[in-house]
Amino acid sequence: MNNESEFGIWPGEVAVELPKEYDASLYYIGRIRTPWTTRADCPKNARESDAVCTIELDERFAPALKDVESCTHLVVLYWMDKSRRDIVLQVPRHYGRQRGTFALRSPARPNPIAMSIVRLLRIDGTKLSVVGLDCLDHTPLLDLKPYFASTDSVPDAVVGWHVAGKG
Amino acid sequence: MNNESEFGIWPGEVAVELPKEYDASLYYIGRIRTPWTTRADCPKNARESDAVCTIELDERFAPALKDVESCTHLVVLYWMDKSRRDIVLQVPRHYGRQRGTFALRSPARPNPIAMSIVRLLRIDGTKLSVVGLDCLDHTPLLDLKPYFASTDSVPDAVVGWHVAGKG
Repeated sequence: MNNESEFGIWPGEVAVELPKEYDASLYYIGRIRTPWTTRADCPKNARESDAVCTIELDERFAPALKDVESCTHLVVLYWMDKSRRDIVLQVPRHYGRQRGTFALRSPARPNPIAMSIVRLLRIDGTKLSVVGLDCLDHTPLLDLKPYFASTDSVPDAVVGWHVAGKG
Repeated sequence: MNNESEFGIWPGEVAVELPKEYDASLYYIGRIRTPWTTRADCPKNARESDAVCTIELDERFAPALKDVESCTHLVVLYWMDKSRRDIVLQVPRHYGRQRGTFALRSPARPNPIAMSIVRLLRIDGTKLSVVGLDCLDHTPLLDLKPYFASTDSVPDAVVGWHVAGKG
């Protein structure tokens, strides 16, 4: 989540011309409250932090939370609204190698939708206390979904470039 | 993925007034080709089918696929463009009980972004052959991400209402 190149292009990075028009539109349905107010503060990934964050859902959608408390984990989709959308090849600072955008979880991507899996601690009205986020305070919320281990959990999945980079 | 109420409201379902304006916009970056051309054809969920589907990425974004072939699994985000967005309580036909939208994976939601985890078989140019999708043919593609077991896999996650419903 903390690719420092978000407002510029670093050596080795490549941008393309984006389509002239958009195809669909989004509502912000709430905000994510976290302890992190600058990119530098954010944990490098969600597993590095056990901070409790709060998802504040807009009141209008409150009824849609029915039965959510029965879920141990949720899929959270949110909007990384401070990112460039035209970069197809990028050089994450902490890896130092050029990678394709779709091989990275960087916020710089054509549609800057982030996905995080969170552990749900409790729900108070329209406020959800969760563990597993690494985004900036006030990040716009797009969606909440139940996490089904049967379809969403793949314990033996491998990101080859990442494994190789550690070797 | 196959909530037949997408164009109407069933008994027990509740809609709210949506915000007057959108907050952000999306590009369709490709299309998903599947064997299913009507809702009734689609598998009830992705685990019910081992059909090989094809993700056709727009040529403009081809360079962003660099290193993706090293991933065994991908997160696919796509747009369920035929869904109502104002329903907060719904009654999935195959469960028959009223549930909150955020406790369901139904396409009817304020931002109809679907998430599926797929197994990557191969990449030929801008065409990705994958297993694990259950959407209609020609569904618009929004994003591809590497699936990291370390943060994305939670084998013991439970959706309580779903387990209870089976008991």
